[in-house]
Amino acid sequence: MNHHTTVLRLGHRHDRDARITTHIGLVARAWGVDQLIISGDHDTAVLKTIESVNSRFGGTISAKWEHSPMGWLRKFVNGELQKQKEKGIAIHLTMYGLPVDEKLATISKKQPTVFVVGGPKVPSDIWEICQYHISIGSQPHSEVAALAIALDRWGARPDDVDTSNALMKIHPSENGKQVSEI
Amino acid sequence: MNHHTTVLRLGHRHDRDARITTHIGLVARAWGVDQLIISGDHDTAVLKTIESVNSRFGGTISAKWEHSPMGWLRKFVNGELQKQKEKGIAIHLTMYGLPVDEKLATISKKQPTVFVVGGPKVPSDIWEICQYHISIGSQPHSEVAALAIALDRWGARPDDVDTSNALMKIHPSENGKQVSEI
Repeated sequence: MNHHTTVLRLGHRHDRDARITTHIGLVARAWGVDQLIISGDHDTAVLKTIESVNSRFGGTISAKWEHSPMGWLRKFVNGELQKQKEKGIAIHLTMYGLPVDEKLATISKKQPTVFVVGGPKVPSDIWEICQYHISIGSQPHSEVAALAIALDRWGARPDDVDTSNALMKIHPSENGKQVSEI
Repeated sequence: MNHHTTVLRLGHRHDRDARITTHIGLVARAWGVDQLIISGDHDTAVLKTIESVNSRFGGTISAKWEHSPMGWLRKFVNGELQKQKEKGIAIHLTMYGLPVDEKLATISKKQPTVFVVGGPKVPSDIWEICQYHISIGSQPHSEVAALAIALDRWGARPDDVDTSNALMKIHPSENGKQVSEI
């Protein structure tokens, strides 16, 4: 992906969501997303986990906490966050949205893009702020899986992360774990 | 999918994995998998969550706990679990395996198939028992996302679940939640 992409995780709860949000971060990193933003509880452990994976396996995804995610989203869409004032595209992943395979291919890939991943209580103005509302099946689903499928349909691939700064490397194998230090 | 598919979750831990394993179950159900087997801690809450989703949104995926997953896998592969003694195909999802896009298309879809999703400590004989070892990128990844991408490449779709017995239905929309009772 050569356009700038962000994943915004809404409504993170320290007690319940630590591993789910970490998985969202692992998916974002592996698929070459540039930035992970977590809102809800200020949970530095999740951010540190992503940084730790970067330091060992490579990658430059940044991870930060945002106290006002809806304000951030409005600014992102309006272009206030981009250096060139370029307007952003916000894609809300929700089981109530339109089917991914019908919709995602129609969205421009030439603008900065954020994939918004819901939490338990998503503010209703999300429906107004985001331009697209995409479902991965109209069924109760995993936001982790939904993010992976959306990135896939968007054209990303699960090894898109730049690992030129990695300290260790996995060698694909049918016979067991093969990892080397670089 | 018209062949019988199972998802086997290894090494479930009650305290840490409840939500991750639930997400694995939600992915399996939505994508039309027939059976979810959980090993590790005997956690009835996860099984009940999947049954609860079935009862509201439809679907017939069965969910059960298995105390001896490696024994189950050996029998599955040998054909001892199938009525017709048909041998099974076991696909181990692991970041150490061969790339999904190279490998998965080459696997027969005419036999009962199990996707094996790892936990923190996967017994090393998994490499001997399973015929295939597939990675979704050679990076630290989410097993939830890995399962969704593997099912996708396998030919399943995220609405493959049979919802003819559903009590409620989601209507895809760009304007907000639209759910009706049936």
